[in-house]
Amino acid sequence: MKIKGRNAVREAINSDTNIIKIMATNSKDKVLLDILNLARKKGIKVQNVDSKILDKECENNQGIVAITTDFKYSTVDDILEVAKKKNKEHFILILDGVEDPHNFGSIIRVAECLGVDGIIISKNRACPVNDTVAKVSAGAIEHMKIAKVTNINTEIERLKEKNIWVYACELGGEDLDNAKLNGNIAIVMGSEGKGVSQLTKKICDGVVSMQMYGKVNSLNVSVATGIVLYEVVRKRKG
Amino acid sequence: MKIKGRNAVREAINSDTNIIKIMATNSKDKVLLDILNLARKKGIKVQNVDSKILDKECENNQGIVAITTDFKYSTVDDILEVAKKKNKEHFILILDGVEDPHNFGSIIRVAECLGVDGIIISKNRACPVNDTVAKVSAGAIEHMKIAKVTNINTEIERLKEKNIWVYACELGGEDLDNAKLNGNIAIVMGSEGKGVSQLTKKICDGVVSMQMYGKVNSLNVSVATGIVLYEVVRKRKG
Repeated sequence: MKIKGRNAVREAINSDTNIIKIMATNSKDKVLLDILNLARKKGIKVQNVDSKILDKECENNQGIVAITTDFKYSTVDDILEVAKKKNKEHFILILDGVEDPHNFGSIIRVAECLGVDGIIISKNRACPVNDTVAKVSAGAIEHMKIAKVTNINTEIERLKEKNIWVYACELGGEDLDNAKLNGNIAIVMGSEGKGVSQLTKKICDGVVSMQMYGKVNSLNVSVATGIVLYEVVRKRKG
Repeated sequence: MKIKGRNAVREAINSDTNIIKIMATNSKDKVLLDILNLARKKGIKVQNVDSKILDKECENNQGIVAITTDFKYSTVDDILEVAKKKNKEHFILILDGVEDPHNFGSIIRVAECLGVDGIIISKNRACPVNDTVAKVSAGAIEHMKIAKVTNINTEIERLKEKNIWVYACELGGEDLDNAKLNGNIAIVMGSEGKGVSQLTKKICDGVVSMQMYGKVNSLNVSVATGIVLYEVVRKRKG
């Protein structure tokens, strides 16, 4: 996998990602030099290349690209372990078919910031972790457990058996403000076009919705995810 | 300006945007045909074109592109009128240098959904309303007043004189959960790289921050805007 951009590469170094090598332009820019020094200290090979070669490797790289071994997916059990180890309540995000890498990357970023234990995605009809996702996540990908499963509904049933409340976020549900959302929680977000699938909604413990006040009233899935996750965090604190 | 994609074009038709013509592929898709019928009912010229020609006009068009007259910016006074007319409290968003059209479009979308009166942007170092912004806003651009001003700080001072509380959203401020945020409110969001500028922060009535729980702890500006605006709405209701 390729990680591009300064923040993303710095995060990859700091989080001990398996970096094969770092390719960087021969710049005197202090921020860039600092990152390369950090890499060398950790014993990572740094290769100076012409900016044209780097652009060929991938575009919009801000002068630096890290070549890593492929992203290692976790299992749902790995995600369940997070809360156990920290002796806290589960906080899981399930994506039912998010297909756009920018949305997926942005979701990983906000999930990491708000302390989500891990993200469950579907093997089919969902965007996998790729270079764009890694870049858009601004390094958050290095700290987030992501499990790719064959059947999301089977996993939701499993989570419910483990006393985790599973809520789908979708139009026409209970007002998010009134929803309880404390205890062990998993939130299901739907795909860009279709939302959460009917069957999935049916097996969830509930459906929550944001109240809307405009004329368009459809949110980008990463923005909607941010709002719902923030509400879960806020309600748990109170 | 060009508006592409089915939802965005439908919104443009419904909101009586000045559409010069609509270009569409010769498809039998029901959704597309419905939009074209709607256009014809409103007396808008529909031109059937080859998909290659449409792709040349702009990419990822979902078979439909509307050619409109340029976006008409509003004034800050227009934005102030909104709350007066509706006899409600002001709710204004100020963007201090958001440069990415995807972020700007996504911000317009969530602002519209959450009932913001209007958005104030800077003439310099900010993304103007362009085709990408319109597309990403998913039609919200048609319902949102946007004022482009020479100096954001001058406008903030003006809003303060009109008894509007102006809060910057930035790291290191008061916890968003504890902030009052009711009454007449304007929220200032900073640019992707630099956040809210020092001087702007200084003249604001306060700075609010989201509590973060991860290792990366930096959010995409459109996601952060969604969370803050939702909190304002939530606190006003309660």
